[in-house]
Amino acid sequence: MVPHLTTALNGPLLELEQRVLDASTAIERWFRLRWQAHQPPFYCSVDLRNSGFKLAPVDTNLFPGGFNNLSAAFMPLAVQAATAAIEKICPAAKNLLLVPENHTRNRWYLENLATLAAILRQTGLEVRIGSLNPEITAATELETASGRKLRLEPLQRAGARLGLEGDGRLGLGGFDPCAILVNNDLSSGIPAILQGLDGQVLLPPLHAGWAVRRKSAHFAAYDEVAAQFAQMLQIDPWLLNPCHARCGEIDFQARAGEECLASNVSMLLQKIRLKYLEYGIKDTPYVAVKADAGTYGMGVMMVRDAAEVRDLNRRQRNKMAVVKEGLAVTDVIIQEGVHTVERIEDKAAEPVVYMIDHYVIGGFYRVHGARAADQNLNAPGMHFVPLAFEESCSVPDPHASCDAPPNRFYAYGVVGRLALAAAALELQQTAPPPGLEPA
Amino acid sequence: MVPHLTTALNGPLLELEQRVLDASTAIERWFRLRWQAHQPPFYCSVDLRNSGFKLAPVDTNLFPGGFNNLSAAFMPLAVQAATAAIEKICPAAKNLLLVPENHTRNRWYLENLATLAAILRQTGLEVRIGSLNPEITAATELETASGRKLRLEPLQRAGARLGLEGDGRLGLGGFDPCAILVNNDLSSGIPAILQGLDGQVLLPPLHAGWAVRRKSAHFAAYDEVAAQFAQMLQIDPWLLNPCHARCGEIDFQARAGEECLASNVSMLLQKIRLKYLEYGIKDTPYVAVKADAGTYGMGVMMVRDAAEVRDLNRRQRNKMAVVKEGLAVTDVIIQEGVHTVERIEDKAAEPVVYMIDHYVIGGFYRVHGARAADQNLNAPGMHFVPLAFEESCSVPDPHASCDAPPNRFYAYGVVGRLALAAAALELQQTAPPPGLEPA
Repeated sequence: MVPHLTTALNGPLLELEQRVLDASTAIERWFRLRWQAHQPPFYCSVDLRNSGFKLAPVDTNLFPGGFNNLSAAFMPLAVQAATAAIEKICPAAKNLLLVPENHTRNRWYLENLATLAAILRQTGLEVRIGSLNPEITAATELETASGRKLRLEPLQRAGARLGLEGDGRLGLGGFDPCAILVNNDLSSGIPAILQGLDGQVLLPPLHAGWAVRRKSAHFAAYDEVAAQFAQMLQIDPWLLNPCHARCGEIDFQARAGEECLASNVSMLLQKIRLKYLEYGIKDTPYVAVKADAGTYGMGVMMVRDAAEVRDLNRRQRNKMAVVKEGLAVTDVIIQEGVHTVERIEDKAAEPVVYMIDHYVIGGFYRVHGARAADQNLNAPGMHFVPLAFEESCSVPDPHASCDAPPNRFYAYGVVGRLALAAAALELQQTAPPPGLEPA
Repeated sequence: MVPHLTTALNGPLLELEQRVLDASTAIERWFRLRWQAHQPPFYCSVDLRNSGFKLAPVDTNLFPGGFNNLSAAFMPLAVQAATAAIEKICPAAKNLLLVPENHTRNRWYLENLATLAAILRQTGLEVRIGSLNPEITAATELETASGRKLRLEPLQRAGARLGLEGDGRLGLGGFDPCAILVNNDLSSGIPAILQGLDGQVLLPPLHAGWAVRRKSAHFAAYDEVAAQFAQMLQIDPWLLNPCHARCGEIDFQARAGEECLASNVSMLLQKIRLKYLEYGIKDTPYVAVKADAGTYGMGVMMVRDAAEVRDLNRRQRNKMAVVKEGLAVTDVIIQEGVHTVERIEDKAAEPVVYMIDHYVIGGFYRVHGARAADQNLNAPGMHFVPLAFEESCSVPDPHASCDAPPNRFYAYGVVGRLALAAAALELQQTAPPPGLEPA
């Protein structure tokens, strides 16, 4: 099922989709060469926004949850992609340790974990789950939303207790993994227990965690990738790329850095206004102000006028000042807002594309009735309804029109992979020097 | 849709399927390590037979047709697998030349070709079709069974005409491919135009063609693979492996070699009888006598008694004496017959599993009403009805019973891959010395 677009069907986006479709052979080869030079992260999900004139990534998650939201019909694609990834990264791997988020009471998150573990097992790995949560002091059985049982065990770092010398290995009692897959975004910092591992493959690398990662570095990398891609396709990169700017040294509580923020918001809004003029778009431009290191939709604010950020009330300041795990916000990214015009049964919908290695394995829509087209659909407490894509993103139909489901999904898969390519570049550019680990 | 098994549901095969299911993690790792050591051929289809007590490959095709018989729902799996294969074999490839069979009037074969070309294009390759057929002297447009247009062009070997020096490159006018995928089984010998290529990747290698290949070499390799796999699973390899023997220096017309054939048939029937006794199987043993280098079900004879091969009438001798392209049969393989107990709407059905690289991408059933359980379902003139597998072969369901569709298909995918592993080993063992090409 594909939501019906409520905008005019012959605006610039259809033009873009047609261009993507016509060039699919060249696009696939472009990606093939790209992955030779830039190893993609193990997995990734990308939130897209389709405004009818623009199709762009707004968030790139390197610790994706929500694998349970994908259509069961595409599990074979996920297994195949994970098999290819494992083969490339750790071909002889026997045991894999999965390190989840700490919120053990979110049964939907546990469902995601069970799905992810099932995918990985089918690649020929023994998978066990080792928790960073200090409350997990012994093996604990939890139940997922669908009633599946999941066993969480406390992580151990004592090589001796694993029957090994030294303390360079991370594992569980009697379980020494070759590879560790982190499904915890490390917002609260890099735990000591994950540092200085000896000969174990850690996926993704520690500097992919939000303790180190910055959205602005990602979107700077995306600028490069989108420019190269747009040049190949001979299109305006803006059609795929939200403008952005960055402010450091912000203190929302102390009202420091407000001027930097206001001038950047103003500059960005002006930039968007000119683009809207160029393309004859009647919408009201807006920007999203986001914590540069935040996630879970926390620390996000939608702004239509620079005056709004000069005039924050206490509640707004409190909301922006801290993100997940109580992390203080000092850096923000200001990002061009991209309206969502996709509607499913008259509710706003935002596509999320999932990738393992460089393969698009599926996706789903976040569907929400209460929110407007220019709001954040991944906000705290937002109970979105996941709607799995019913078609894959990898097989366009050249004989169908460009807004036919396989072709729209193909375009989503292309833009998702552009964000993935940006993440690969970002992780290369932000990698600590060899031998050193991020602090 | 999975055919209902008409045999007892608690015989040895269900035991085998359960063992396969329980060990799926170990099996997948076993395959993962296997592919590190033995590069699989680019593509492969395997005919399986499921007798209710035995699940075995009976034919391994290294130039598979019938891609059009696969479910369209699995095309993403095929595209993903082909992408992984191209990435490994010729990562920078831009142009691929597809060399088809010569029978240009078989519109279903052309349908297969169109499907295969579509899969390959989606990996980022420009695909054109170059024919060995001397009748194709200029670009010729043909129509497939579904009405798709297909353009065949005459192969060219003159480097100069391709704008290149020397004559080491194969191509079409203005098209210089990096890789050449052969979908012609080369029964009539290796055409000079395919020999001595300069820097172009030829898939599969020339010695995979029936001009050089021998079924007996394949099944000798399968003996090794099945023995290792059975040892890991702690099962009797016979449950996965048809017994076989070989006779050379046969001349059916001159009635030479009959004694060798009769004694081998007799020995093999005795071997099967003992196995049937061991497992309490009441069926009548039979063997298939096949041309060692044949295909298309030509030169195949079913035998229940050694006397039958001493007593061939002229029609039977004629039938066995030559195979496709008039090739004379001098070597035969005698293979344990495996009954098919699979029935779809009361018609005999034989599963065929398709692989690209080491990934199972789907399969279909050959369904035929007129033929008995112990007959060859891929015989000349046989109009089978293809029935695409509705589930993938890569995601077993550990919570369902072992004869549930995903689990039966998983077992099919495992046995298909064992035959693929045998093909990889066979191609290694039969490869000509470096620098030399098969004659």
